[in-house]
Amino acid sequence: MGPGPSDVDPRVLAAMARPIIGHLDPEFISMMDQVKTMLKAVLQTENELTMPVSAPGSAGMETCFVNLVEAGDKVIVCQNGVFGGRMRENVERYGGTAIMVEDEWGQPVDPAKVEAAFAEHPDAKILAFVHAETSTGVRSDAKTLCQIAQKNNALTIVDAVTSMGGVELDVDGWGIDALYSGTQKCLSCPPGISPVTFSNKAVEVVKARKTPVASWFMDTNLVMGYWGGSGKRAYHHTAPVNALYALHESLVLLLNEGLENAWSRHDLHHQALKAGLEAMGLELLVDEEYRLPQLNSVVVPEGVDEAAVRSALLQNYSLEIGAGLGALAGKVWRIGLMGASCNRRNVMQCLDALENTIREQGIDVGQGAAQAAAKVYQN
Amino acid sequence: MGPGPSDVDPRVLAAMARPIIGHLDPEFISMMDQVKTMLKAVLQTENELTMPVSAPGSAGMETCFVNLVEAGDKVIVCQNGVFGGRMRENVERYGGTAIMVEDEWGQPVDPAKVEAAFAEHPDAKILAFVHAETSTGVRSDAKTLCQIAQKNNALTIVDAVTSMGGVELDVDGWGIDALYSGTQKCLSCPPGISPVTFSNKAVEVVKARKTPVASWFMDTNLVMGYWGGSGKRAYHHTAPVNALYALHESLVLLLNEGLENAWSRHDLHHQALKAGLEAMGLELLVDEEYRLPQLNSVVVPEGVDEAAVRSALLQNYSLEIGAGLGALAGKVWRIGLMGASCNRRNVMQCLDALENTIREQGIDVGQGAAQAAAKVYQN
Repeated sequence: MGPGPSDVDPRVLAAMARPIIGHLDPEFISMMDQVKTMLKAVLQTENELTMPVSAPGSAGMETCFVNLVEAGDKVIVCQNGVFGGRMRENVERYGGTAIMVEDEWGQPVDPAKVEAAFAEHPDAKILAFVHAETSTGVRSDAKTLCQIAQKNNALTIVDAVTSMGGVELDVDGWGIDALYSGTQKCLSCPPGISPVTFSNKAVEVVKARKTPVASWFMDTNLVMGYWGGSGKRAYHHTAPVNALYALHESLVLLLNEGLENAWSRHDLHHQALKAGLEAMGLELLVDEEYRLPQLNSVVVPEGVDEAAVRSALLQNYSLEIGAGLGALAGKVWRIGLMGASCNRRNVMQCLDALENTIREQGIDVGQGAAQAAAKVYQN
Repeated sequence: MGPGPSDVDPRVLAAMARPIIGHLDPEFISMMDQVKTMLKAVLQTENELTMPVSAPGSAGMETCFVNLVEAGDKVIVCQNGVFGGRMRENVERYGGTAIMVEDEWGQPVDPAKVEAAFAEHPDAKILAFVHAETSTGVRSDAKTLCQIAQKNNALTIVDAVTSMGGVELDVDGWGIDALYSGTQKCLSCPPGISPVTFSNKAVEVVKARKTPVASWFMDTNLVMGYWGGSGKRAYHHTAPVNALYALHESLVLLLNEGLENAWSRHDLHHQALKAGLEAMGLELLVDEEYRLPQLNSVVVPEGVDEAAVRSALLQNYSLEIGAGLGALAGKVWRIGLMGASCNRRNVMQCLDALENTIREQGIDVGQGAAQAAAKVYQN
């Protein structure tokens, strides 16, 4: 129950352990087509360039930036947590200029600040932001931010690592141009693969580049020779066959459940967890309006050794919860409710373990957590 | 029995399906240390920067080039197959100049040509070559090529994707500065991870760069914060936990067998396969002296529809063999004997299936293949 990787469904683990076949085998090619079709469904897009990058989310991020940013480009980068900072590094490594829009950690991206940044930099080519900040548990208003970008003729690059499968995400409806995600959050798949999608407009921008993409491995022009929809597949790199078995199975599970049902499930268990935490007198960092159900940042109460609590949870309950990162290090715990990890048993065990562990530090947290959570489930 | 991915040992598949734990969990960190120690043993190196890149071999290649090449650098690139060409692309995408040393596909890199290239370009910073060319089945003399580079004060970047675990590979003994490999060949592990090692000299060159590395994901300065040996691990990207379980298990298997024993096993089964192919009147592309036991390029006999043969092998025998690439497309089959795939049962089944399938095309290949191979095993 950390910030990811989340628990992997046993069906996904079993799929991963299937015997390998060749990465150009007709059976495998047909499975690739299914993966693409299911990714499109989950991302709610018709984008032809929709595929899993053969590397973790950080490489998915890099795939978006290395293809779309050229030297001299201005990119408005919103930072309200760890991952906006990483976006800035990406922009600068490809010779772009990052116009930073800063918000406090724990706050969503402020659309007014983004409007102001465009007013000052009407030539900005791209707006980049994180939909669901894993470092804080904040959801930003992706739809509104995309509208601002469109009004200013800019492309959008959206980090959906933690949002995909856990909360609403509508690539075509919101007009997102480039998006990357990860398998190890709400898809309940092992880490190592990054789903990516590019709009046709983004594809045109890549094709019109003046300079070659500064990466052979991540050049979408080349990768699409292998993942492209029609005709012959050209060898690009050796696909991680077993990791793709796993992704395939996790997408089957998600689509069987239904996107809306999965989002509701994340919300339900979040409400129960929240009720239990509040019964203990604990506070959530993020305002209700912007809270991600799948990533709960809990303010560490005064007098509690937060690292000792995490360590005791791991040792005594085999339960992982996350530490704060960056500006929030030492100040919050991050409790994940992602994918297969997002269930009633986990919520109840977590509340119980946390209550006992904090009590052992001499802090009174009452005994009502379980009851408060149970009440949510009864409604 | 294609050019990789090779069959995965059932123990490795089972390891991959173990429940996931956090990528910063103390138990996982201790497994990472074991992976590093075993990689060093298999690569015969003491290099501190020895780690698995969280992406396929192509990303391992890119990790070497993106860190070591700066704009304006001259790199002597040897091309005697597909992968030398990919090295050139890497050099050029990072603003370097590739000085090409060309040899025919099916021939090893000619050390005399490399000497001549250094004589003409004494300021070349790096010599890059492929140790075991998967596209042809040729082994080049890595030791001699490294000596030439050292004499000319140049670093070496070596592609050991197909050599690691199948033939002798001695990173420290030969003085290799940067090397990348893959898991899906002689390590019998699923594809998706690329073992990489950098000498201290190479690490110093990266640290002394004038410009930032043009990749955040592959910047060894950052990655080593997570994979580095001592002290606290800093979060860089989410490691592909289950893929690393698999790599760990495959390294245990290889080191239990013993490096020399693994190399001998590859040689033995190659000799048996060769005897059987020759009994059928088939010819190997590569001269005996440079032949890789783990990748056998077989010249397609006149009058045979090579694609139909591969397709029939797959459909009738569930047996994959590889097609020729690039200059050798349509001219050779590539039969892999890699890692767990390199065993007597596979050799005998492959010979039998190939004999029957070619005969069905109306070509007389006799009936002596099995007997010829069996004779090798009897000696």
